[in-house]
Amino acid sequence: MRDVAIVGVGMIPFGRYPEMEAHEMGAKATLDALKDAGTALKDIQLLVCGQLFGTSGAGQRMLKEIGQTGIPVVNTANACATGSTAFREGYFAIASEMYDAVLVVGQEKMGSGVMGGDEPPGGERPEGFVGSGTMPALFAMAGMEHMRKYGTTQEQFAKVAVKAKKHAAGNPYAKYRDPATLDEVLNARMISYPNTMLMCCPNTDGAAAAVLMPMAKARQYTSQPIRVAASILTSDPWTERDLALLDINTLTRNAARQAYETAGVGPEDLDLVELHDCFATAELLHYENLGLCGDGEAGRFIDEEATYIGGRIPVNASGGLLSKGHPLGATGVANIVEVTWHLRGQAGQRQVENAKVGLAHVIGIGAACTVHILKK
Amino acid sequence: MRDVAIVGVGMIPFGRYPEMEAHEMGAKATLDALKDAGTALKDIQLLVCGQLFGTSGAGQRMLKEIGQTGIPVVNTANACATGSTAFREGYFAIASEMYDAVLVVGQEKMGSGVMGGDEPPGGERPEGFVGSGTMPALFAMAGMEHMRKYGTTQEQFAKVAVKAKKHAAGNPYAKYRDPATLDEVLNARMISYPNTMLMCCPNTDGAAAAVLMPMAKARQYTSQPIRVAASILTSDPWTERDLALLDINTLTRNAARQAYETAGVGPEDLDLVELHDCFATAELLHYENLGLCGDGEAGRFIDEEATYIGGRIPVNASGGLLSKGHPLGATGVANIVEVTWHLRGQAGQRQVENAKVGLAHVIGIGAACTVHILKK
Repeated sequence: MRDVAIVGVGMIPFGRYPEMEAHEMGAKATLDALKDAGTALKDIQLLVCGQLFGTSGAGQRMLKEIGQTGIPVVNTANACATGSTAFREGYFAIASEMYDAVLVVGQEKMGSGVMGGDEPPGGERPEGFVGSGTMPALFAMAGMEHMRKYGTTQEQFAKVAVKAKKHAAGNPYAKYRDPATLDEVLNARMISYPNTMLMCCPNTDGAAAAVLMPMAKARQYTSQPIRVAASILTSDPWTERDLALLDINTLTRNAARQAYETAGVGPEDLDLVELHDCFATAELLHYENLGLCGDGEAGRFIDEEATYIGGRIPVNASGGLLSKGHPLGATGVANIVEVTWHLRGQAGQRQVENAKVGLAHVIGIGAACTVHILKK
Repeated sequence: MRDVAIVGVGMIPFGRYPEMEAHEMGAKATLDALKDAGTALKDIQLLVCGQLFGTSGAGQRMLKEIGQTGIPVVNTANACATGSTAFREGYFAIASEMYDAVLVVGQEKMGSGVMGGDEPPGGERPEGFVGSGTMPALFAMAGMEHMRKYGTTQEQFAKVAVKAKKHAAGNPYAKYRDPATLDEVLNARMISYPNTMLMCCPNTDGAAAAVLMPMAKARQYTSQPIRVAASILTSDPWTERDLALLDINTLTRNAARQAYETAGVGPEDLDLVELHDCFATAELLHYENLGLCGDGEAGRFIDEEATYIGGRIPVNASGGLLSKGHPLGATGVANIVEVTWHLRGQAGQRQVENAKVGLAHVIGIGAACTVHILKK
């Protein structure tokens, strides 16, 4: 295997685009990424597209917007890890020495309700028949378990949202950029205890894209190639547990362990982390799952503001899903794009200074967890 | 890149399984493939799953049936080429030297009507709003164009179905195994001229699986590793044509050219072909698109029975989609499995004698075309 580098990235501001389809958003992100890479569509040899709703043909529709060149198109879906799974397939295509220029795009147009609203995946409406198995309930229960086990408080979970909102003020790509006080977070409408409305990621459309090349070629295109030091995907190991949700811990721990081993770094070497804060409860759990702090210490970790920009290990400098929103297929590519910007020193007001190593994490109930480690 | 070999394959008989879900069918095919490979699930390092309806989580649901080991799971969708796209991703995973044992499974449970019936893909019902853009109409028009251009007759297209039915008699995996005379084919209910009911592939459930390893390792597991000599995927090159269907020709020609070049063989070196005969008209066109005969010669080619088992180049010895049916996600893996059986001399009554090189072709409107060339 050879080294793989990110040469160009692009993203559209996450938000609501009633006038656009997912592939049109993907096309905008792609054009930005191609421009950023200093290359053109005609030089791209493979497209891997991540789109959860309407997977088949998603990449082809995107190409139709900007130019069809006959290149192979692979469409992937892997729950919330759809975009990052697509990125990983692109990574392998370069690493295998089969291709020298690969485009990865994640794109999604969400419905108006939970989990795609009027356009549920595969004709299913999970919220209708699973009862307490909805995403808000599952992630609330995971938080409750942490409270029971370690004495974590609702205030500590709420602080994750306060941090997210503060970081988002510096991110023009975030859907919501207004700050919120701890009181405002706690007093927002209750969704599923301990998560209030401001502790749940908003339903959002979006797209992000990246151009990958072998490192040797990348250096001809950019003075700042970003190396993909680890690209890990895990699924649920067999357990006797019935509750799928609690697997987010095991899944993430397995992926993180493999990623650190592959990249030859530890959590202490990271300069920033973009992790899957679909709910505020999830973020605290992942501090421990990714080894940023010890088990049971996550509450104190946020109390100490260790994960603020300027803190020991900035987490979700972008404002996270809580501020950006969570267009399912786009998310996994978007957090890799965000880390790339920081490693290049191009993250504007939210820049984590002097960042050299970053981690991007996504977890999909279903189950799929990706951890990417990027190096300057 | 290193050589990739098929070590084990499995398939369930295609048909109607009202009592089973797609992932349950996939599990059966997988267990067969693992047994055939002389390996076990615990030794598999990656699963790539192709399922068009309900793509996300498809592979994970399959694993849940037979044992979850925490391995990465990638789910793909690419219209009719869904299964073969999954196979190709598995091929890259081995070729890249990242993995030494990869499982690929294609699985699908179809609805009761055209294109998934009650469970349409992505909430869309193409038949409802595209009018003449339905699959039967599109492939009928492609046939009509061939008739206009070369004087091909309806009888010649019908002969494809007669051959398919004859071949299927020897295939226990085919849904329909009864023979049909030319008169019976021509007098069957008209679907879209020139294709009658017996010239259209039936709506069918099914699953197929394959275990891939690097060639060096494969030899430790089997005395008959089958080498993947080419794994090509193409999408639609830009054209001024509006009618998506006619792209089946360009798409297939591009993929075939690349495949022959990669494998270092020509159509004259092939011992058998499994091609995408979703409609009888398509098969004749693909004789020319794959270079089995010259342009405009396909009608005469079938008149001469050149594509019968025992003929110059047996096509769809399995009975093809016309007899087997077409479970979308399974099809692309299934025709690779069929070619594998022939190269190993394990195809029973339908065996193409002394087969050393085989080609498997799938085309998906959308657009994606795969051509795999396998060598003994």
